[in-house]
Amino acid sequence: MKKISVVIWNEFVHEREEGTVGDIIRRHYPEGIHRHLASFLAEEDLEITPVSLDMPGQGLPDELLNGTDVLLWWGHCAHGAVDDALVERIHKRVLAGMGLVVLHSGHLSKIFRSLMGTACRLRWREAGEKERLWVVSPGHPVARDLPETFVIPHQEMYGEPFDIPQDGKIVFMSWFEGGNIFRSGVAFERDRGRIFYFSPGHETYPVYHDPNVRRVLLNAIRWTAPDVIAADRVTPMPKPLEKICSADPLAGVDTAHLHK
Amino acid sequence: MKKISVVIWNEFVHEREEGTVGDIIRRHYPEGIHRHLASFLAEEDLEITPVSLDMPGQGLPDELLNGTDVLLWWGHCAHGAVDDALVERIHKRVLAGMGLVVLHSGHLSKIFRSLMGTACRLRWREAGEKERLWVVSPGHPVARDLPETFVIPHQEMYGEPFDIPQDGKIVFMSWFEGGNIFRSGVAFERDRGRIFYFSPGHETYPVYHDPNVRRVLLNAIRWTAPDVIAADRVTPMPKPLEKICSADPLAGVDTAHLHK
Amino acid sequence: MKKISVVIWNEFVHEREEGTVGDIIRRHYPEGIHRHLASFLAEEDLEITPVSLDMPGQGLPDELLNGTDVLLWWGHCAHGAVDDALVERIHKRVLAGMGLVVLHSGHLSKIFRSLMGTACRLRWREAGEKERLWVVSPGHPVARDLPETFVIPHQEMYGEPFDIPQDGKIVFMSWFEGGNIFRSGVAFERDRGRIFYFSPGHETYPVYHDPNVRRVLLNAIRWTAPDVIAADRVTPMPKPLEKICSADPLAGVDTAHLHK
Amino acid sequence: MKKISVVIWNEFVHEREEGTVGDIIRRHYPEGIHRHLASFLAEEDLEITPVSLDMPGQGLPDELLNGTDVLLWWGHCAHGAVDDALVERIHKRVLAGMGLVVLHSGHLSKIFRSLMGTACRLRWREAGEKERLWVVSPGHPVARDLPETFVIPHQEMYGEPFDIPQDGKIVFMSWFEGGNIFRSGVAFERDRGRIFYFSPGHETYPVYHDPNVRRVLLNAIRWTAPDVIAADRVTPMPKPLEKICSADPLAGVDTAHLHK
Repeated sequence: MKKISVVIWNEFVHEREEGTVGDIIRRHYPEGIHRHLASFLAEEDLEITPVSLDMPGQGLPDELLNGTDVLLWWGHCAHGAVDDALVERIHKRVLAGMGLVVLHSGHLSKIFRSLMGTACRLRWREAGEKERLWVVSPGHPVARDLPETFVIPHQEMYGEPFDIPQDGKIVFMSWFEGGNIFRSGVAFERDRGRIFYFSPGHETYPVYHDPNVRRVLLNAIRWTAPDVIAADRVTPMPKPLEKICSADPLAGVDTAHLHK
Repeated sequence: MKKISVVIWNEFVHEREEGTVGDIIRRHYPEGIHRHLASFLAEEDLEITPVSLDMPGQGLPDELLNGTDVLLWWGHCAHGAVDDALVERIHKRVLAGMGLVVLHSGHLSKIFRSLMGTACRLRWREAGEKERLWVVSPGHPVARDLPETFVIPHQEMYGEPFDIPQDGKIVFMSWFEGGNIFRSGVAFERDRGRIFYFSPGHETYPVYHDPNVRRVLLNAIRWTAPDVIAADRVTPMPKPLEKICSADPLAGVDTAHLHK
Repeated sequence: MKKISVVIWNEFVHEREEGTVGDIIRRHYPEGIHRHLASFLAEEDLEITPVSLDMPGQGLPDELLNGTDVLLWWGHCAHGAVDDALVERIHKRVLAGMGLVVLHSGHLSKIFRSLMGTACRLRWREAGEKERLWVVSPGHPVARDLPETFVIPHQEMYGEPFDIPQDGKIVFMSWFEGGNIFRSGVAFERDRGRIFYFSPGHETYPVYHDPNVRRVLLNAIRWTAPDVIAADRVTPMPKPLEKICSADPLAGVDTAHLHK
Repeated sequence: MKKISVVIWNEFVHEREEGTVGDIIRRHYPEGIHRHLASFLAEEDLEITPVSLDMPGQGLPDELLNGTDVLLWWGHCAHGAVDDALVERIHKRVLAGMGLVVLHSGHLSKIFRSLMGTACRLRWREAGEKERLWVVSPGHPVARDLPETFVIPHQEMYGEPFDIPQDGKIVFMSWFEGGNIFRSGVAFERDRGRIFYFSPGHETYPVYHDPNVRRVLLNAIRWTAPDVIAADRVTPMPKPLEKICSADPLAGVDTAHLHK
């Protein structure tokens, strides 16, 4: 069976910051979140490639992106550094069928916002509080084998209102100790592509060491993985399929130059 | 009662083309589609301003856009000429509540595609064939006072598949003589803004002289008009609303510089 | 201006129970929840009629229902006592445009379940805990003039998973002190009718004395109120609108008796 | 690999009518539509059982229904004869995960209407006209391996407006020679169950001999087939998951008898 080709993209900035906070992040992710996730998520049906913003082609040169089935995206302080042309290439590939799993602060990434069309803002607080997730759609593939509710001991709070389109299917919702709630796992379809947003994953806590989070990410990768990647060619259809009897008042007038 | 401030934006290119086709378009819209629509749609509750791409600020300087309740958009061959910065300003205002009515070839405009997040492609054919519209959602405000079905004698065919998000509420669907069908009137909500796409309106036929089309456009303007325009300030929420008992492992560590 | 004709239906059982709990409920609603709501919600544009299950026609005889614009529904332990024929009449009127506001335990009422088509189950707990509501869709008419978040000091917990269709627009989500979350205010459209479900309202706490709850209910009444109530006659359409050239292999065969 | 257990239910009335029309139907389906479909759809991964209304348990006794993965439903003139109790059992099993494929006139069956919650009416005409289907969602599993458009030479016309909820994903839309259009293939999710409605299939034409229709039905069976069938037990949750500090004004009062 063909493996799913997964690329994990990370801006890879916080892990290299100097000082106490950088030290804390490095304790959880000594090689960077992308490399950690690559080994954390290793399974037989996945071929995982960790990449980062500082690599050639910002980590996603054509030859890599064009063979990617599912892209995971972790970004936070360097959203603005990602080239618009790269965002456009990713956008096109998602619409053609590539899966996209957007992690934590990626809600404000260019690629997520360009796919949603909305502001994607939310409320937030860094107080290391407890987050409790609930499975809202027990039958959804991304909820498979997860308990009805599970806890992440310390997380940055992400809260409503969250500006996303209303057709996102809510798979997880979160309760925060400090009084907030959030749609923390939401599944979208855009053209042929499937997109999953999952909010837990703040860099200063060991969220990506949690077995339930691992299960969510593996489920999300398998759910967003495409059967086929196909940029549907939608072209003119000059010949009618059924007989046209209306006398076109423009018959004989050449309008082609207006519609190249 | 406060009037609805409506701006009708037109790229205003085809109406000034030389040759036979230009002559035909000018016969229908001697002053341009925008000025024609401004008088065609005149009603007591509307304050209408027609503008075009060749005007200062591409027709939408800040002082005008910031007072606009509903924007109508007609564009076709000059989509690429619209400044990205203007598109971003319009996008923000739509998300804050401004109504947007996208006409005909505007399905490929930057503003529509940036709000949808999808490719917005479709099938098309210029054969002057008959288009028959059907009201699919009889209770929707944009369908008010319209017959169950009505005909536009000659139109460019726009056909499925049409790449739009699935949460668009279909108000009209079209039958074309040549064998195609199309979701020709679709209503979207994005954050606080309402968006209506209406496909009839090819420049070489007198579509915007049709009384049913007039009814659709007036309904769409009134449905998309906002109660309030408000760019929701979604800011951090540093103080918890409920008591946090978890001991934050980061207590005392200053992470502020990471999250400007 | 024509007033909105509002009927508040209450099963009116708990308020007449003997014993301590009955006493507590009567302290909050001495005349019954329906009569309390009728005076609590009194506004100039509303004509409010409180009714209950023990009245003739189970409170909703034809002549009353046929003039109702918006129906509020409070039921809990007597769902099974409501006649199926009455449910069917209400169902038809909602599909024709009548607004329906379903309160608290009404999620399991026959009328709500028949409109949703899903199981409408949820998790619950009676511990008198704090419920905190959040406005998730700030631009929705039912959220008008409400603060971003507000508290109900004591409530029965209603928690996810909640089995409702995914096209409900979430206006409010709730945080519960005991660790649960819930989609507590959800807006649906079914044919011509608008439906709003609002979960706060447990009978043993004075929820319907809260000014924010009052604001929600008034907004919900005005949002669900119809422009027109019209049972669309969808009938056969024997005459084609366009010429049919296919030779029908059944031409001349009388099939009418099969399709009365 | 475990086979998908498919039951094809047919009211089996028209095929046994006397007279010319009955003769025509019998020419296409001498053993009844259900038995024809059972052999027409035979594939290695499917275990197909054809049943009909006149069989014990109206064709769906508990022991059969409880082992069914996907149910196909063909009904027209005998909708009213199906027992409400059977409809309720099917309804429950769909919500628990069983797939349901509703064919042609099944739009007015009790089971489809009870899952939709809407009126499910449409326009219709028997003129043997040509129906042309279009794939509207090319990436949807039910559209797999189908051409962009295909024709059914003679069909009963089914036309808009069609009263169904707006969250149905439109996979096919139809063009009719006589001027109508229709959402002819729509995919729904209700709790754990997937539902596909497909309108072609009038009994007097050999629609279920068409290879494209075969492809649609096989795709629909495989798409609606469940991973798991699980009636989620949603029960009270008496113990809070997080500490409750609010002093419950009802502490010490026994309310259990009110909430059996």
